[in-house]
Amino acid sequence: MIVILRDDPNEKQLENLINWLRSMDLKIHESRGENHRILGLVGDTSRVDIDLISALDIVREVKRIQEPYKKANRKFHPLDTVVSTGGAAFGGGHFAVVAGPGAVESGEQMSLAARIALDAGADILYGGTFMPRTSPYSFQGLREEGMDILVKAGKEAGLPVASEITDLHELGCFDDVDVIQVGARNMQNYELLRELGRLNKPVILKRGLSSTLQEWLMSAEYILDGGNENVILCERGIRTFEPSAYASMDISSIPILRALTHLPVIADPCGAAGRSAPVPAMAAAAAAAGADGLALTVSPDPQHARAEGPQSLTGSEMKKTVAAVRRVREALREETRDE
Amino acid sequence: MIVILRDDPNEKQLENLINWLRSMDLKIHESRGENHRILGLVGDTSRVDIDLISALDIVREVKRIQEPYKKANRKFHPLDTVVSTGGAAFGGGHFAVVAGPGAVESGEQMSLAARIALDAGADILYGGTFMPRTSPYSFQGLREEGMDILVKAGKEAGLPVASEITDLHELGCFDDVDVIQVGARNMQNYELLRELGRLNKPVILKRGLSSTLQEWLMSAEYILDGGNENVILCERGIRTFEPSAYASMDISSIPILRALTHLPVIADPCGAAGRSAPVPAMAAAAAAAGADGLALTVSPDPQHARAEGPQSLTGSEMKKTVAAVRRVREALREETRDE
Amino acid sequence: MIVILRDDPNEKQLENLINWLRSMDLKIHESRGENHRILGLVGDTSRVDIDLISALDIVREVKRIQEPYKKANRKFHPLDTVVSTGGAAFGGGHFAVVAGPGAVESGEQMSLAARIALDAGADILYGGTFMPRTSPYSFQGLREEGMDILVKAGKEAGLPVASEITDLHELGCFDDVDVIQVGARNMQNYELLRELGRLNKPVILKRGLSSTLQEWLMSAEYILDGGNENVILCERGIRTFEPSAYASMDISSIPILRALTHLPVIADPCGAAGRSAPVPAMAAAAAAAGADGLALTVSPDPQHARAEGPQSLTGSEMKKTVAAVRRVREALREETRDE
Amino acid sequence: MIVILRDDPNEKQLENLINWLRSMDLKIHESRGENHRILGLVGDTSRVDIDLISALDIVREVKRIQEPYKKANRKFHPLDTVVSTGGAAFGGGHFAVVAGPGAVESGEQMSLAARIALDAGADILYGGTFMPRTSPYSFQGLREEGMDILVKAGKEAGLPVASEITDLHELGCFDDVDVIQVGARNMQNYELLRELGRLNKPVILKRGLSSTLQEWLMSAEYILDGGNENVILCERGIRTFEPSAYASMDISSIPILRALTHLPVIADPCGAAGRSAPVPAMAAAAAAAGADGLALTVSPDPQHARAEGPQSLTGSEMKKTVAAVRRVREALREETRDE
Repeated sequence: MIVILRDDPNEKQLENLINWLRSMDLKIHESRGENHRILGLVGDTSRVDIDLISALDIVREVKRIQEPYKKANRKFHPLDTVVSTGGAAFGGGHFAVVAGPGAVESGEQMSLAARIALDAGADILYGGTFMPRTSPYSFQGLREEGMDILVKAGKEAGLPVASEITDLHELGCFDDVDVIQVGARNMQNYELLRELGRLNKPVILKRGLSSTLQEWLMSAEYILDGGNENVILCERGIRTFEPSAYASMDISSIPILRALTHLPVIADPCGAAGRSAPVPAMAAAAAAAGADGLALTVSPDPQHARAEGPQSLTGSEMKKTVAAVRRVREALREETRDE
Repeated sequence: MIVILRDDPNEKQLENLINWLRSMDLKIHESRGENHRILGLVGDTSRVDIDLISALDIVREVKRIQEPYKKANRKFHPLDTVVSTGGAAFGGGHFAVVAGPGAVESGEQMSLAARIALDAGADILYGGTFMPRTSPYSFQGLREEGMDILVKAGKEAGLPVASEITDLHELGCFDDVDVIQVGARNMQNYELLRELGRLNKPVILKRGLSSTLQEWLMSAEYILDGGNENVILCERGIRTFEPSAYASMDISSIPILRALTHLPVIADPCGAAGRSAPVPAMAAAAAAAGADGLALTVSPDPQHARAEGPQSLTGSEMKKTVAAVRRVREALREETRDE
Repeated sequence: MIVILRDDPNEKQLENLINWLRSMDLKIHESRGENHRILGLVGDTSRVDIDLISALDIVREVKRIQEPYKKANRKFHPLDTVVSTGGAAFGGGHFAVVAGPGAVESGEQMSLAARIALDAGADILYGGTFMPRTSPYSFQGLREEGMDILVKAGKEAGLPVASEITDLHELGCFDDVDVIQVGARNMQNYELLRELGRLNKPVILKRGLSSTLQEWLMSAEYILDGGNENVILCERGIRTFEPSAYASMDISSIPILRALTHLPVIADPCGAAGRSAPVPAMAAAAAAAGADGLALTVSPDPQHARAEGPQSLTGSEMKKTVAAVRRVREALREETRDE
Repeated sequence: MIVILRDDPNEKQLENLINWLRSMDLKIHESRGENHRILGLVGDTSRVDIDLISALDIVREVKRIQEPYKKANRKFHPLDTVVSTGGAAFGGGHFAVVAGPGAVESGEQMSLAARIALDAGADILYGGTFMPRTSPYSFQGLREEGMDILVKAGKEAGLPVASEITDLHELGCFDDVDVIQVGARNMQNYELLRELGRLNKPVILKRGLSSTLQEWLMSAEYILDGGNENVILCERGIRTFEPSAYASMDISSIPILRALTHLPVIADPCGAAGRSAPVPAMAAAAAAAGADGLALTVSPDPQHARAEGPQSLTGSEMKKTVAAVRRVREALREETRDE
């Protein structure tokens, strides 16, 4: 961490700052020029609150060199983390597909959805139960009842199941769920993240619509810091000015995260686009960019789905998409083999 | 609501759609040209899920004419809502200031903060207790203990108090709090909003960093729909590419919301800027744009505040800011008087 | 085009509007409900200025159904446009790579760059001559002199050459240049676009940092409308809040443009990322998403390049990247073959 | 400028870097810790290209302390620049209003517009002549002919005139124009800026839709560096995700620019909003935030304006707006007086 001081800092205040920093076991190196004076801090700065120092009159700017996340940081954990459940695994060369309908609607619908998803290449069955909806007048999900249906459908199909949690108090309903998803709107629901850190279950942490990579990794850090290392990051697009898609999938986040963190990164092209047409191309792109998996919305009948119909693939669309994705991955593996 | 059909829609599917819409008590008017066919829907469309229709093969696009929010809509509620607590009131010509430190730190600090805020023109005392922090390693707030300190400081100063809730389960700690704040990160925490809708207490609903005005009003609708009409909207900036401020205060949101909704709208220039220097100018601008109040971060000692120090005004800065704001409001009131 | 009227429109004004629309050879269909009145306009609406109608008191909103671009529209030109020069072709299944250094620096540097680019799989040699630089104090390019060097290097290597134009008056220097590039900052320099429309040379039109797909296509329309059909669209990222890359490559723009327009679309991962590390992954992603080509910055010595060094690939990095891209394309072609 | 080195930098490369920096008359101070090594550069770094250093393998990051603009920098020019023409002046406590129609349409229209603008409080008459239009099918302006009409209307009304230039080659038509406007789309048209730097005329430089404050000031630097010190910055909104306005007026840019630069800053609420309803509130807000002037679109007949009708104020709307703005300024001047 580097502290850039203002011109002519009050020496008394500077002494106080230096003493306080030393009390946190940091070593201080000073660099002094005609126009600037800089303190270089050496030691574990992840627990130093950058705002506390920035607020001082004598400080012009504080700049981190070390990232503020530690447990999610590849620097301190160079090997890829592999997150697995049932037969599915993400990261370290493993690739898996989570797929299912936006909403669990009925037993029949989920049975059918599970068969379609399995046939199309899903490794984990998703179903929306507790659903965060922009409008209070939209269908809010079958909730507890939906969870029972989902779990049953997963068992029938022999697939682990995943669903989204929207509030801490729902946690009791997730006992039989294999993977807990935290949606974009809850990426910074720290009370929830802290609690998920106490579990030992995989958590898919979707990127918030306006979250930087660093904020996202800090949210992952909440879960990791609690002791749960099974975090899967899911890129689902960021909000931009472009109206042709619900959100703009940030494709460079995949290779950039690969360098910053050891956690697996998957992509959710359906959620990003908000409609199905561009999804096959986006799914192939995510795989080519190095994603460790995909989250796909698939429905036996997208036209009559009670939620997320426009972004849902049909079974046959998903099947083609997953097949193409696997060929892309194979093509890029060859690359490594050849070298 | 207008449904724009694709060219040559399947007549069977179209009949199904029309029958379904009629079953929701909507009247349908068809417009047909060479290149387009359009259904105009007449009736209460706020309960129609736009996605359900958009997903149909025969539909090209669906366009709302009526806004999807009803209880927050000025059209159905032309008079300004006035939200009041203690002596403070927002809306309908009333203007109030909520101010206090980002974090409650101790009894002494809050006593001092309350005196400073009161002297500088605060109508409601704010103190952060349950604090949503980007880093798990930052100070997380004094929580329950902080709430007692805040309530006590408010009583001493004779001011109503406000604090932020970050999760449903904290609600029990807010019994003696006069105004509950929902922060930007929780603007779409619908479980929480629904619960706040069951109370009869003023709720300050901050705008999410990447929320459109419509999404924000839909979140207000959750609270209003539960029966709580005491919602105060708080503009605290949107996330943009510009790095010179934490968020870009969206000044035109104030007059635009004024037309769309009857709810009071206040602004949080400290939270938007993330540092105090531009705050006096931004506060005056918000008042000039028609805001019904301000939320300000004020601290007896910004340089040593445990949170939000860089964005905190000192007491004397706040006092000047509030005085200028009141003069701006006076100047604009003259305008009305003169006409 | 649909004109949504305000409640109780002034009948005289409405009559005026209808007469004016009819005078432009448009047929009008009216749809009338309790709460809305809509005019559906049938005919060629691409020449109707949406703002002219929106400004009327009696009009609530105007919504285009037909896109405002005509010559770039796939609807009126269903087959892919193939743009070719020398042996390189873009679109209609053809894929080509434009590569070279950000700045032409000297004869030796360009000779070397040309050999490296050719060896790594470039089809067209790029070199920056007239350079738009954010700072007046940065190297501004060798201009005319650089153009001669570029053309010579292209001849030696047997490659067509491309360079960026930054102002109309430079056009005379582009006689021996095979492909003219319009940079992001000039995407809406309409005087320049109009002039390029009079040529018969391929134009690479980069997307502006904050341009929507529709604005970008409207800029292409300027060139097409002048009679030059050789337009290649180049996605080079949009400006967002995310600081980890210079711009966020908007991957879904590729499949979405594919549906909207017949023009070839290429991607510029180096320009988007602003640094080389994520480029190989982004290039593979662009190809997987269906891009018709790539623009790559390559340098014999990125560390000492006078411009765009951080985003430059070395020759060997480019070679691996292009090889991987070709394998991805092959893998996705298989898909089609299998079905 | 601070150069943060990577761990264990190659000593040979480091020596080369240090020698090169010294050759630019910079002094180097090294700070060395366990985990970092930093070079602090002292001297005039505005001519150092940050990219050149960033591209080096041994460099982790480069951070400017001194801003890259020099002539626009308040640090080196502490007093406010006052830009004046005719009786109008901007900056240093002076406030002026530029107003007129989006397009010059005819002699009668401009005569009328000039009278209305003058009556409503305009200090400079604006008229669009060379018009950058998103669509090639929209009205493109009367160009040379429009310029004559504008100049004549200005003379009649006794007002200096302003118009927008869209390309270098139009410069000859601006001889009788008092203020040259560079629109948002041309903010980074450096060839144009350089040429305007050779004049001695006031230039209104609008902010590009996706330009940071620093990029904007760098564009001003092009003009200043050429010797023309009469630059007026005009905030006209930035592109964000919010659809309720054409662009989001970035209100905090006004106080932040005030600190960074000595140049006057005005605001264009009509251009930002894209429609007139929120303009009076936004204009008052800009004045309250400290703007040195306003650019307003005013039309004798907004409903039938050939361009920018929706954003145009009527004469009486403008009159009320300007009166309110002047009262706000008066109210804030009192503040200073009282202290």
